[in-house]
Amino acid sequence: MASIAPASDTPNPALSAQAALLARPSSEERRMADCIRALAIDAVEAAKSGHPGMPMGMADAATVLFSRFVKFDAADPRWPDRDRFVLSAGHGSMLLYSLLHLTGHAGMGIPELKRFRQLHSPAAGHPEFGEHPGIETTTGPLGQGIATSVGMALAERLLAARFGKSLVDHRTWVIASDGDLQEGVSHEAASLAGHLALSKLTVLWDDNSISIDGDTALSFTDDTLKRFQAYGWAVRRVDGHDHEAVAAALTWAQRSRKPTLIACRTIIGFGAPTKAGTAGSHGAPLGEKEATGAKSAMGWNHPAFEVPEGLRERWATVGSRGAGARRSWLKRLANHPQRDEFERAVVGKLPEGWHLPLAALRARLAEEKPKIATRIASQRALEALVPAVPEMVGGSADLTGSNNTNVKGVPSVAPGNFAGRYIHYGVREHGMAAAMNGMALHGGIIPYSGTFLVFSDYMRPAIRLAALMRQRAIHVLTHDSIGLGEDGPTHQPVEHVASFRAMPNVFVFRPADAMETAECWELALRRADGPSLLALSRQNLPALRTDAGENRCARGGYVLEEASGPRRATLIATGSEVHLAQAARTALEADGIPTALVSLPCWELFALQDESYRAEVLGSGLRVGVEALIGFGWERWLGPDGVFIGMTGFGASAPAEHLFKHFGITTDAIVAAVRKKLG
Amino acid sequence: MASIAPASDTPNPALSAQAALLARPSSEERRMADCIRALAIDAVEAAKSGHPGMPMGMADAATVLFSRFVKFDAADPRWPDRDRFVLSAGHGSMLLYSLLHLTGHAGMGIPELKRFRQLHSPAAGHPEFGEHPGIETTTGPLGQGIATSVGMALAERLLAARFGKSLVDHRTWVIASDGDLQEGVSHEAASLAGHLALSKLTVLWDDNSISIDGDTALSFTDDTLKRFQAYGWAVRRVDGHDHEAVAAALTWAQRSRKPTLIACRTIIGFGAPTKAGTAGSHGAPLGEKEATGAKSAMGWNHPAFEVPEGLRERWATVGSRGAGARRSWLKRLANHPQRDEFERAVVGKLPEGWHLPLAALRARLAEEKPKIATRIASQRALEALVPAVPEMVGGSADLTGSNNTNVKGVPSVAPGNFAGRYIHYGVREHGMAAAMNGMALHGGIIPYSGTFLVFSDYMRPAIRLAALMRQRAIHVLTHDSIGLGEDGPTHQPVEHVASFRAMPNVFVFRPADAMETAECWELALRRADGPSLLALSRQNLPALRTDAGENRCARGGYVLEEASGPRRATLIATGSEVHLAQAARTALEADGIPTALVSLPCWELFALQDESYRAEVLGSGLRVGVEALIGFGWERWLGPDGVFIGMTGFGASAPAEHLFKHFGITTDAIVAAVRKKLG
Repeated sequence: MASIAPASDTPNPALSAQAALLARPSSEERRMADCIRALAIDAVEAAKSGHPGMPMGMADAATVLFSRFVKFDAADPRWPDRDRFVLSAGHGSMLLYSLLHLTGHAGMGIPELKRFRQLHSPAAGHPEFGEHPGIETTTGPLGQGIATSVGMALAERLLAARFGKSLVDHRTWVIASDGDLQEGVSHEAASLAGHLALSKLTVLWDDNSISIDGDTALSFTDDTLKRFQAYGWAVRRVDGHDHEAVAAALTWAQRSRKPTLIACRTIIGFGAPTKAGTAGSHGAPLGEKEATGAKSAMGWNHPAFEVPEGLRERWATVGSRGAGARRSWLKRLANHPQRDEFERAVVGKLPEGWHLPLAALRARLAEEKPKIATRIASQRALEALVPAVPEMVGGSADLTGSNNTNVKGVPSVAPGNFAGRYIHYGVREHGMAAAMNGMALHGGIIPYSGTFLVFSDYMRPAIRLAALMRQRAIHVLTHDSIGLGEDGPTHQPVEHVASFRAMPNVFVFRPADAMETAECWELALRRADGPSLLALSRQNLPALRTDAGENRCARGGYVLEEASGPRRATLIATGSEVHLAQAARTALEADGIPTALVSLPCWELFALQDESYRAEVLGSGLRVGVEALIGFGWERWLGPDGVFIGMTGFGASAPAEHLFKHFGITTDAIVAAVRKKLG
Repeated sequence: MASIAPASDTPNPALSAQAALLARPSSEERRMADCIRALAIDAVEAAKSGHPGMPMGMADAATVLFSRFVKFDAADPRWPDRDRFVLSAGHGSMLLYSLLHLTGHAGMGIPELKRFRQLHSPAAGHPEFGEHPGIETTTGPLGQGIATSVGMALAERLLAARFGKSLVDHRTWVIASDGDLQEGVSHEAASLAGHLALSKLTVLWDDNSISIDGDTALSFTDDTLKRFQAYGWAVRRVDGHDHEAVAAALTWAQRSRKPTLIACRTIIGFGAPTKAGTAGSHGAPLGEKEATGAKSAMGWNHPAFEVPEGLRERWATVGSRGAGARRSWLKRLANHPQRDEFERAVVGKLPEGWHLPLAALRARLAEEKPKIATRIASQRALEALVPAVPEMVGGSADLTGSNNTNVKGVPSVAPGNFAGRYIHYGVREHGMAAAMNGMALHGGIIPYSGTFLVFSDYMRPAIRLAALMRQRAIHVLTHDSIGLGEDGPTHQPVEHVASFRAMPNVFVFRPADAMETAECWELALRRADGPSLLALSRQNLPALRTDAGENRCARGGYVLEEASGPRRATLIATGSEVHLAQAARTALEADGIPTALVSLPCWELFALQDESYRAEVLGSGLRVGVEALIGFGWERWLGPDGVFIGMTGFGASAPAEHLFKHFGITTDAIVAAVRKKLG
């Protein structure tokens, strides 16, 4: 952000260090780094907003990384066995765009850089996945990039175990800021990476001691290297402007058996005559004078957005450095026995016939009519799906037995054993969700997780990114209401479903019985362009559906039981309340009030249907919504004269059946509301 | 939760360690600890749900802590200078309830323990603030307790700096679980506590190597002590069943100049003949056989819920151990020159005349009619409030210059300097919000924070607890829409306001100009029973209000401009879109369409008004809602025939004015929508 940090009154020690560095003879590689600095300065000046300080500070380390280490080929930025590069410090987006430009990626030319931070430019304010194929993930919200990278590094290990090293053998490189490492999610992700010994993950920490409020010492005195050692990482500290030192550390990292953190001591805004080493260079254009001064200090005499031919050529060779490796890999792929399967998994296509075991399950459920919790029904769906869809990788944030996310016989992922397909994420919901994004982005994995619905709050920033990036990450969120019972209001979600219905591109499923659960699982898995949340009950629910043909949840909502005559009332419910509404319908019909019952497991899908279908389902009579959650948003379906029966505040600690009575979410209450309203 | 962990096939090494410990001669203090274990077993058995393992494992350490260290007096559990005790591992609530019972706190008798986890019992599934005066904070969602305790310890330092050591001199003690320390928020909070050297904070980590999925080694191999050292904590490891070792560590902690972490190596479910040391004792009743076996192993021959008289008497002396200290403190208070001010601040009463500077500001704003961003207006409100309300303590998660949360001349809090009133929280939104809860719970502080609205997602679990605990924590959330501009969709909140409108007991304010901002600040500060969020613009907004008399935001929504004749349309907007709607109204009126303009800055307050007032404000004509956010929930005010103009998905990176056009949130669009609808 274009925040204005107050100028410091104390002398700036970074300036003398900078002067000494600039006085050294300039290597070609230093001049390559100057290209990044100049482009970052120019683009931010042109946009009149942006973050020049970070690209200027990390240009040297990034140049070393790309020109000597990252395995990539600008001719095919989506080559599956490329190294992944994550700019966790997403505000420094011009670092990434400059690298993509200089290495010759199509679609990131000078015209695009000149339109930095403008509408429809791939060079958005922060790197946005989907805007350019060279952008591996959306970053900007601090901590997300580093946590996502853990998932990418884990995906590499999982796929290597499945397809072998000849197809999958790449590294994940990250540039992270002080802010990334202050965020709690960095703790969860780094701890998980250390536990799993993800040795092909390397984080370059832009250790510049500056954050927006000023010197990081204002708020931060961690011994970060020691902290990462405690997670099981190998660590090093280097001068981030010393190319050979950075290269030596990166070589060391390649040989490590642990994930590696390299603290790159840098000067933020390197080159700027007065703003270097200060928060003043972080989040606002340098201004003409400072920009000119910086270029002059670097000995950069070229017009804005111009890269001299020699350096451009040198960078172009970097862009094609990996071409040979890619060609070799393509040959290996062509002859690989698992070629088809690899290609299928990597593009995210589900296996032929994947849904047949689920169809068989649905047929069995229609006969069995089991009275089970939808979390148990979800486990049964997983028992059908997990063997059929080998790219599904599950897990739970330490609630496996409660979330019912594991399937018998599926081995767990463990340090040194990546043939497993189930991850014990520990009590790390946020790290889990971010790592899942990384796995989905990597390709070849469909991640699903488990925790209590109430703890979706902990995952929310990562789920938002999955929605924004259109990634298939599936969250099994159990104990989805006061039906959780005795654990009380801290564990009883009341607003979470509404809060995710408000989030764009998230599908929230709240199935009513085992059949709907199987249907919703099918829909979640089919959905390739965004995350799905399954809100599931702790408590047993009767079977409501005995038809196993059509996936009726696919329309989001449907008439489960039609009224016996012209409708006077329609009861609209989701999840564990549908059976309460069903009993109410029976009572009302017995009273001579023709009443329909609608199940509405997925509002987002329902909203996508024709208006005429929706009107037919919802009916013209009195509409009564029933959901043991806060009613926020229900007016959409109920209209101004509708009645909502649900929660109006937080829950309480008691056995579930007492709570439903206490809060008035009962069959009797539904019946009474309809009678009262219809006079 | 009553999750079922699979029984391990490997022999359980904890059992031999347990046998050795049980073979030792039993001290009186060990038998005091057995009281806790027995009550925990009995209550969980009676409730048929709950978590016996943790109270059984930590009973020894907790007994040492309470019987020799915690400064408290059961006769007055709210005595302001008491030590704070936080059971971060809230699932072990029977540990706390047993302690409150045994030390003689009123309102936690055997009848209450027998109703553990039942409706209206103060002994809820997890400790709930407000259910019993001896419960300092609501815990259960892991990580929250330890992070909240950092705020309590910080509040103690701030109040000690203000009122002196004779009135404020107490410690904060925490019992935390493995899960607490795995959560990211523990990183943020511990890092902040280390930075500020909160030496009167001590965390006893229940280091039992067991979490719900099984052995913590499944997911967790951190060197936790090293990690906390990296934060600047002093650390020790003890046998948590060795009373003298625990006592020695606690004595050492009292002398530390850093916050202290004591790893208490314990056996979960200590005493249980087969389940001890396993996840099987964590979250479900032991069952009769195991319960009997545990009691027999402890040599406990008493009926359920019965504590033998001798031990009861011994515990009663613990409960009154602090009575003398409290009496001395009351004498010091009686004679203290700041007595009235201390008492006022601690009960949360605002100072006499606190609102006068704000009233003066509002009068100036009415004359000045400044065109400023509401975040700037918020700063002006703070300039009026902060000098007048000495218990206000502000801060920002490293966005001070953008959130405009600081006031000139207010010193920052720094290690060793607690006379400040502004906290640089670092990039630690979640830790910030949890610490604010701790400050509010401690009493004597009204905390307010700053970050971007989009990052409220990071704070959500802590804001939820503030709502549940009815705590006054005020969050300044700036850059509240696509009006943020170039930083793009990762930084543009679209669903956040709706998501908090769905959360019970949260007031979301979105003021339209400087005057409304001052009014909303007044309302947020007056609100003593829950958190308030101020959603503020980055961009400048024209002054819409020139009346400075009544606080019109107090009703949540009001007619800003009435129609010139019988209303045909009502434009209802919030925040930065009200001025767009105002221009549209002018155009429509010029067209001969009598149109009213309604500002709706706080839905929650508006919902509290009489239905007749609401109907009058909203009018019977066409209703058009305008908010540059997702429309989820707007049907409540617009009815089925209303029109909503706002966002339908995520934002984009571009200058703000381009974005408003791109997404069709303009005066022209409003006018066109009304014309189309009215034919």
